[in-house]
Amino acid sequence: MMEQDQSPEKSGHPPAQSILHEVRTAENSAAYLLPTLRSMVNSNSHLKLLDVGAGSGTISVSFAKLIPDGHVTGVDLSSNILPRARAVAEKAGVKNIDFQQGSVFKLPFDDETFDITVCHQVLVHIGNPWDALREMLRVTKQGGVVAAREGDYETECVWPELPELRKFHKLMAGLMSASGGTSMAGRQLLSWALRSGVERSQITLSFSTSSYSAPSERNICAQGLCDQLRGGSLRERALKFNLGTENELEEIAKTWEEWAKRDDASLAMLHGEILVQK
Amino acid sequence: MMEQDQSPEKSGHPPAQSILHEVRTAENSAAYLLPTLRSMVNSNSHLKLLDVGAGSGTISVSFAKLIPDGHVTGVDLSSNILPRARAVAEKAGVKNIDFQQGSVFKLPFDDETFDITVCHQVLVHIGNPWDALREMLRVTKQGGVVAAREGDYETECVWPELPELRKFHKLMAGLMSASGGTSMAGRQLLSWALRSGVERSQITLSFSTSSYSAPSERNICAQGLCDQLRGGSLRERALKFNLGTENELEEIAKTWEEWAKRDDASLAMLHGEILVQK
Repeated sequence: MMEQDQSPEKSGHPPAQSILHEVRTAENSAAYLLPTLRSMVNSNSHLKLLDVGAGSGTISVSFAKLIPDGHVTGVDLSSNILPRARAVAEKAGVKNIDFQQGSVFKLPFDDETFDITVCHQVLVHIGNPWDALREMLRVTKQGGVVAAREGDYETECVWPELPELRKFHKLMAGLMSASGGTSMAGRQLLSWALRSGVERSQITLSFSTSSYSAPSERNICAQGLCDQLRGGSLRERALKFNLGTENELEEIAKTWEEWAKRDDASLAMLHGEILVQK
Repeated sequence: MMEQDQSPEKSGHPPAQSILHEVRTAENSAAYLLPTLRSMVNSNSHLKLLDVGAGSGTISVSFAKLIPDGHVTGVDLSSNILPRARAVAEKAGVKNIDFQQGSVFKLPFDDETFDITVCHQVLVHIGNPWDALREMLRVTKQGGVVAAREGDYETECVWPELPELRKFHKLMAGLMSASGGTSMAGRQLLSWALRSGVERSQITLSFSTSSYSAPSERNICAQGLCDQLRGGSLRERALKFNLGTENELEEIAKTWEEWAKRDDASLAMLHGEILVQK
């Protein structure tokens, strides 16, 4: 399972195109944090967790299930996405959660409010991620943890090699740059954390992968990308930044559909992960 | 922990430069196979496992520990490496193991001899990996498993971005091509398995990472690479194939030493993994 690279936090669009976001859970997108989270829950079941750039809230909701006596707050820059996140929580029967609008650069919380502050595919989209990390550290309690997982899009490897999929890669990397972000976020997470003011000894760095290869995974991947290429915010931004024409986007979408039908097809990518002990 | 990309099977050289090979174990280099192996050991403790391209044998030895009532055979194209592999086994007190010379294209065993046939960083070095997989399938019993893990060197991401380390990347990719191999093996494993004649439904594909970032890991990485750049088979082959001058190799080695001293340094790479059910 792979997470799409376009964050609702940046897009500000409703989640019509969210199939690739909504398969995200704490288990598949924050596994690096779970041992620490479980250990912290053991000593304090009333843990407060902040999920920054929560989007449609599927990761936030799965965090909330892991701390039933605690509370999860999800923030997103886009207020448009909040009703969807609240609906996801309600459908899951999760009540120890709330969602609100907020920017990672100016989180609407007092200093030292949360035990765990986490983000996923947020820093990849912004030009000064160390400031975002500093702000996440500010709202985190002493003894708490700041956690971030970001894709390294330049490590994306797709097979078979189809020219249209190379074009798609360039398009996505172009969108990341257009928002001030980088297609090489995963490898830089450690340097960003250091620049935010913490010591190397406070940081645990790890890497993990996301991938699509089984038939059902390929279908989810292709459907999610085609939806975005044909009608989502990805399309809108690609056209706005002159990263592709309508025809080119349609050709790419058709190629993803062909790709999904091939038994030898796979897509994989590397992600960087940091745990910062405050 | 990351495995070096130059296989003893291809190099035919004694293991003076083997620090990066000898940190390899079944646990860090074949984790994808272990649940299957444990389940097979449960139903047959006398399992026979073949490790193809065993090199200095550290992975083979850790497999042997996992099947104490079974037997492991390690083969390597290079007979020079066999004494080192036997010494590794002896030092570990492991007796249910033997090492012998052999090529992955003509394994010196009858059809259906082994329950598990495994290789690691072998197919990356050869031009017709599907033939190697077909030969591995031949010596594997019906109901047995063929397993392979291969790096995808084009996904290597190193931080900070230092020009000499980019040169190193090109040099390594050049060495892989020079032997008929590919720097994009991980993403092609599935297609190679299909070409070897098995069905998609027999194959489980996964991806994992290897990385160096903690100070001790960075030191092992830099020391291993510097040893190879200054006196190992990597140096010999790089000079032979005109992939670098002596001065350039020394500059690259010095840069790895600088890299290891930096708190913001990391190196990560993606690996493809297949389990084929025969």
